[in-house]
Amino acid sequence: MIIIMKPDASAAAIDHIVNFIRQNGLETHLSTGHEVTIIGVVGDKTALADKNLEIAEGVDRILPVTESYKLTNKKFHPEPTIVKVGNTSIGGNNLVIMSGPCAVESAEQVMETAVAIKKAGAQILRGGAYKPRTSPYSFQGMEEDGLRLMKEAREATGLPVVCEVTSQAAIDAAVKYVDMLQIGARNMQNFFLLKEAGKTKLPVLLKRGLSATIEEWLNAAEYILAEGNPNVVLCERGIRTFETATRNTLDLSAVPVIRSKSHLPIIVDPSHATGVRDYVKPLALAAVAAGADGLMIETHPHPEKALSDGPQSLTFPQFEELCNTLRPVAALMGKPLA
Amino acid sequence: MIIIMKPDASAAAIDHIVNFIRQNGLETHLSTGHEVTIIGVVGDKTALADKNLEIAEGVDRILPVTESYKLTNKKFHPEPTIVKVGNTSIGGNNLVIMSGPCAVESAEQVMETAVAIKKAGAQILRGGAYKPRTSPYSFQGMEEDGLRLMKEAREATGLPVVCEVTSQAAIDAAVKYVDMLQIGARNMQNFFLLKEAGKTKLPVLLKRGLSATIEEWLNAAEYILAEGNPNVVLCERGIRTFETATRNTLDLSAVPVIRSKSHLPIIVDPSHATGVRDYVKPLALAAVAAGADGLMIETHPHPEKALSDGPQSLTFPQFEELCNTLRPVAALMGKPLA
Amino acid sequence: MIIIMKPDASAAAIDHIVNFIRQNGLETHLSTGHEVTIIGVVGDKTALADKNLEIAEGVDRILPVTESYKLTNKKFHPEPTIVKVGNTSIGGNNLVIMSGPCAVESAEQVMETAVAIKKAGAQILRGGAYKPRTSPYSFQGMEEDGLRLMKEAREATGLPVVCEVTSQAAIDAAVKYVDMLQIGARNMQNFFLLKEAGKTKLPVLLKRGLSATIEEWLNAAEYILAEGNPNVVLCERGIRTFETATRNTLDLSAVPVIRSKSHLPIIVDPSHATGVRDYVKPLALAAVAAGADGLMIETHPHPEKALSDGPQSLTFPQFEELCNTLRPVAALMGKPLA
Amino acid sequence: MIIIMKPDASAAAIDHIVNFIRQNGLETHLSTGHEVTIIGVVGDKTALADKNLEIAEGVDRILPVTESYKLTNKKFHPEPTIVKVGNTSIGGNNLVIMSGPCAVESAEQVMETAVAIKKAGAQILRGGAYKPRTSPYSFQGMEEDGLRLMKEAREATGLPVVCEVTSQAAIDAAVKYVDMLQIGARNMQNFFLLKEAGKTKLPVLLKRGLSATIEEWLNAAEYILAEGNPNVVLCERGIRTFETATRNTLDLSAVPVIRSKSHLPIIVDPSHATGVRDYVKPLALAAVAAGADGLMIETHPHPEKALSDGPQSLTFPQFEELCNTLRPVAALMGKPLA
Repeated sequence: MIIIMKPDASAAAIDHIVNFIRQNGLETHLSTGHEVTIIGVVGDKTALADKNLEIAEGVDRILPVTESYKLTNKKFHPEPTIVKVGNTSIGGNNLVIMSGPCAVESAEQVMETAVAIKKAGAQILRGGAYKPRTSPYSFQGMEEDGLRLMKEAREATGLPVVCEVTSQAAIDAAVKYVDMLQIGARNMQNFFLLKEAGKTKLPVLLKRGLSATIEEWLNAAEYILAEGNPNVVLCERGIRTFETATRNTLDLSAVPVIRSKSHLPIIVDPSHATGVRDYVKPLALAAVAAGADGLMIETHPHPEKALSDGPQSLTFPQFEELCNTLRPVAALMGKPLA
Repeated sequence: MIIIMKPDASAAAIDHIVNFIRQNGLETHLSTGHEVTIIGVVGDKTALADKNLEIAEGVDRILPVTESYKLTNKKFHPEPTIVKVGNTSIGGNNLVIMSGPCAVESAEQVMETAVAIKKAGAQILRGGAYKPRTSPYSFQGMEEDGLRLMKEAREATGLPVVCEVTSQAAIDAAVKYVDMLQIGARNMQNFFLLKEAGKTKLPVLLKRGLSATIEEWLNAAEYILAEGNPNVVLCERGIRTFETATRNTLDLSAVPVIRSKSHLPIIVDPSHATGVRDYVKPLALAAVAAGADGLMIETHPHPEKALSDGPQSLTFPQFEELCNTLRPVAALMGKPLA
Repeated sequence: MIIIMKPDASAAAIDHIVNFIRQNGLETHLSTGHEVTIIGVVGDKTALADKNLEIAEGVDRILPVTESYKLTNKKFHPEPTIVKVGNTSIGGNNLVIMSGPCAVESAEQVMETAVAIKKAGAQILRGGAYKPRTSPYSFQGMEEDGLRLMKEAREATGLPVVCEVTSQAAIDAAVKYVDMLQIGARNMQNFFLLKEAGKTKLPVLLKRGLSATIEEWLNAAEYILAEGNPNVVLCERGIRTFETATRNTLDLSAVPVIRSKSHLPIIVDPSHATGVRDYVKPLALAAVAAGADGLMIETHPHPEKALSDGPQSLTFPQFEELCNTLRPVAALMGKPLA
Repeated sequence: MIIIMKPDASAAAIDHIVNFIRQNGLETHLSTGHEVTIIGVVGDKTALADKNLEIAEGVDRILPVTESYKLTNKKFHPEPTIVKVGNTSIGGNNLVIMSGPCAVESAEQVMETAVAIKKAGAQILRGGAYKPRTSPYSFQGMEEDGLRLMKEAREATGLPVVCEVTSQAAIDAAVKYVDMLQIGARNMQNFFLLKEAGKTKLPVLLKRGLSATIEEWLNAAEYILAEGNPNVVLCERGIRTFETATRNTLDLSAVPVIRSKSHLPIIVDPSHATGVRDYVKPLALAAVAAGADGLMIETHPHPEKALSDGPQSLTFPQFEELCNTLRPVAALMGKPLA
């Protein structure tokens, strides 16, 4: 931690800060420059948490030097984490594709989708049973009935399933049916939910919030890991910007940035990011080339009849064609699609 | 709803859309232009919800004409709503100031604050007992003990109290102690929580999400009203932009925009928006001049010792001075401070 | 300047940096912490400009301590600057209102406007003769003919005039006719234009770029001051965000932020920021309450016939009513409207 | 164009609009719905430009149906444009790599770079002679001397050269030396400069503005094409968001979006977008996989000594390794690197 004093800070003010820090058991290093004095703080900074030094007399600003996230930080855990989900794993030398409908609608829809995506090359089935929708008048999901249909599809195809949870009640239900919990973008800083998801010890897919910085995202993951659950996979799904040609702006820089700051796997969801079917394939290819560990791709037997996000869903032939196009690129990147 | 066809849409594609709409019980009006054909849809559009017409053959895009929020919409409820909270009310011809610490820390802190802010001119006591914090290692709040301290302060001073809730458990506890529930920015689209807050029938203070559009904010309020709870007060608290000189960018345009689109009261929180104590007063004045129904201002007996957000908290003398400066401006705006 | 080393930086790497800095004539202070080593640099940092220390071995990142803008910085020039424009001045104990049409269209329009706004209370006439328009097919301005009409209006009414310049040719023409040059938002980082405007020694109104940070804005002003021209007035006119209910998001926090970081006057343009006539008045009031030195308000004799930005222009009666409403608020803020 | 009337618009107001439109020579189609009336306008909308119908009585809002850009629009020019630059071409079945230093610094630097990048696989040499810099105290470029060095490097290696221009004077000089003009992000809406660049008939590389929408970018290109110059190549280089882990947020969605809306070629600059050397390679790969026609990559013989943007520059061995890694991906995408 570095404390930058104001140009006109008095010697008494500087002394006061230095003494305060020492009384809290830390050491200081003073740099007295032409314009300003800088106080470097050495030691365990948690002793100064919530001391609000920012408003002490003479202080201009305080710069943190180390990251607040520890368990998710690559500095303290250099080896990449591999998260096992059912009979597949994410974060190793393979590309994992999760696919399925935005919302679970019927037994036929889910079963038909599971069979088709497995055949094309997907390893995990996705499907929403609890749908966070902007308007209360939009379809809100089949809830536990939807989870049950997902489980049946797993039993029939062997594909592990991932479902979003939006409340304690949803978690309580989901643990009976699914292989992986998803925390959606709108709940990325629902810290209560993060803790409860952590307690289940199930793998958790944590989507980036619409306006979350990468640092906040890693801090959100830290909530899950701090509950003793190391099985977290991050998912970039677009951030909110001024651009309106796409629903959100897919931030593919997040892939190398996460790679340099954390040991957790990262996958990319081009379907929700763009909201436009025609843009899914080029951005899926780009995500794999950027080094992502996997993809989440929306598919639907009849997108024009989907109750949610149909315009971004691929048909089964489109999905199969996508997988075939991805295959050689994934192989080149050292992460072949099984 | 308006459907814009692609320039090369075939006559068959246009017929298909028109027939589909009519089969769903709505009427169409066709405008055939030089470049494109436009289909106007007349009737109850909920019959077309989730039909995904966007991806039907020949369709370029679909433009909604009417807002998805109804109960919060001024068009259908032109009279301003006045929300009663304890012995005060928000949305009428008076300015309401909510004040208190970011986080409840002790009985003395809360009681001392309640007495001081009441004397200076505030009508409602705020204080957080459940704190959503970016890092799991920051102070997370006193929870139910904190709510109890807030209630004691109300009993001693008569000031109604507002506390943030972050989960079902927090709501279950809060209804026993507080006069108004707060849904924070990070939970603005926690739709589960919105519904549960709606069911309590307590007044709800709904903060705008960090990256929420005004339309999404009104849709979030719609979730509460749709549960039969009309007592919603909106709170602008800054949105996320590229600017880093302030913690967020206070969007004061939201005051007249909400005024033109909704009947709900709107207050402004310059403390969280800026994160800097020196900017609170000019922006509080600006909010009142823009026509806000109230303010939320953080105060603390000893900001430098606050466990949360000390740098933006006012001392009691600073708060008193702020109220005195606000008084004549509020009177000029036709919303005097009691 | 502070250099933060990587956790695994070798002693040799640290020595290398320290020696390099000393060879450039500066001093260093080392803080060796549990996790990282920090090197404080003391002395004239321009000696290290463009040395790209960021990529030296072992360096994690470099934090600047002092601002790059000097002439515009309040730290080195604590007294507020007052800019004289014709017979009025901006930045003192008075509120200055600039008003007029977005674009100069005819002699009648300009003259009629000048007379009306002067009567209502404005001190400066604005009017665009060179219009930067998103599409090449929109009206591009009357150019030098427009400047001439502005000058005639000044001669008739005594109001000084401000016009936007967009090129060297426009500056060469404008110096013959106007009292103040305006650099628009789209040209805020047209550094060539900033230098040329600086050389004229005319007062310059510098609008904030659509996505400019306050620090970049002050650096842009620095370009003008560095040419020996201290007569710069800043104008906040909205920044680009995800919100679409207003054309841009007016950042009124900029008023106190600029006040704390610079000695230059700051005015606010709610017309361009919102793009909606009904929102101009509440935000004009808010700007004055936030402490702005002035306002820029678009007016037009017949907004529905304006060739540019009619929807945000006030009619003359609306403008007069606005001035009358502003008057007591301006007086309360210690900046009465003459 | 579609005009949406307010719910309470009177029959007289609707008649007034309809008559006004007809008087301007266009046709109307009325859709009278439950809540609102919609007026579709058919015919040449330029007749209504600048009529400010938005503020006519009873009008709620106006929605454009067709894009304002015409010459750059794929609808009216479905075949992809191929831009010839020296002996190479951009937009066909090949990947083009432009590389070189951010700023021209010396004859040795430019010559050494030209030789090295040509050997590795680049087709075009880039180098800045006029540098737009945030601070007036940063290196501003070698100007015409720099252009001369670029030309010498072309003569020695045969690589065509591209240089940024920032003013009329810079264009006048550049046409004597370079093969392609670059308009930088900060000048994307310097409409004067766009027109002048258009008049030269040289190929123009148009970078996207930091906060420009794709629609504005295409309108900026329209300025160049409207001068009779069809040789425009677009360059995505990152937009400004709240994320601070990278300098800007590279918007790779722009590649398929541009592909669907325009016939112009698009290349990607991951160096300026990220500002971090380690992120250049993954994002260069991603850009190629997304379908980009080319890349702009900064290289420098000694990045640690670069006078501008050293931290993002690749060394020659790094660049060679990048080209080798790109080669098979480019081949897979049907755009082999020569």
